[in-house]
Amino acid sequence: MQEMTWSKAEKATARLAFQRAYERECRALAGEVGAMLSSLREPRDIWRVHDFLTERRKTTDEKYDYRYSVLVFVLARLLREGWLREEEIAALSEDKMERIRSIAAL
Amino acid sequence: MQEMTWSKAEKATARLAFQRAYERECRALAGEVGAMLSSLREPRDIWRVHDFLTERRKTTDEKYDYRYSVLVFVLARLLREGWLREEEIAALSEDKMERIRSIAAL
Repeated sequence: MQEMTWSKAEKATARLAFQRAYERECRALAGEVGAMLSSLREPRDIWRVHDFLTERRKTTDEKYDYRYSVLVFVLARLLREGWLREEEIAALSEDKMERIRSIAAL
Repeated sequence: MQEMTWSKAEKATARLAFQRAYERECRALAGEVGAMLSSLREPRDIWRVHDFLTERRKTTDEKYDYRYSVLVFVLARLLREGWLREEEIAALSEDKMERIRSIAAL
């Protein structure tokens, strides 16, 4: 894939979209943890909550990689998973949007 | 310290007390996690919950060591920390109870 350049305005758009997606995902995760907590069958099942958070932290840290070299893939994934809406990144160049849409549709 | 022998009845008493203390501590921990969750300032603070559980899992795993060679120390600690009530282990021999009380009072 050809190296893409990001204008200052595009970087600001991408950064904001990325942060919003991250907040949404963390908020959803907190909701999942709350649901787990309220349905513990035994007190020791609290460690399942810990295992769950350990796993999610790993996947979340890997997913939210803000390097420009991989950013179209990251944004595409966030779009596909529903953490991001297309209109939030509509200010990106049309070639970037095409790439992101096509990757998201894979 | 002189090696102590544990009768079958004492083992049953100790095991039950140990399990109850563990359940109480896990239940209290779940309550603490619930309180943390309901007072997250930012969504990303969910990772503080993870850090907290990681730390507690380590200390809990270390504390709940059911080897007879260390059990009077463990029971004394559980007593001192309030996870165990003295009457729950009152069926242990008087020399064990004295040891446990004196260690708990340190």
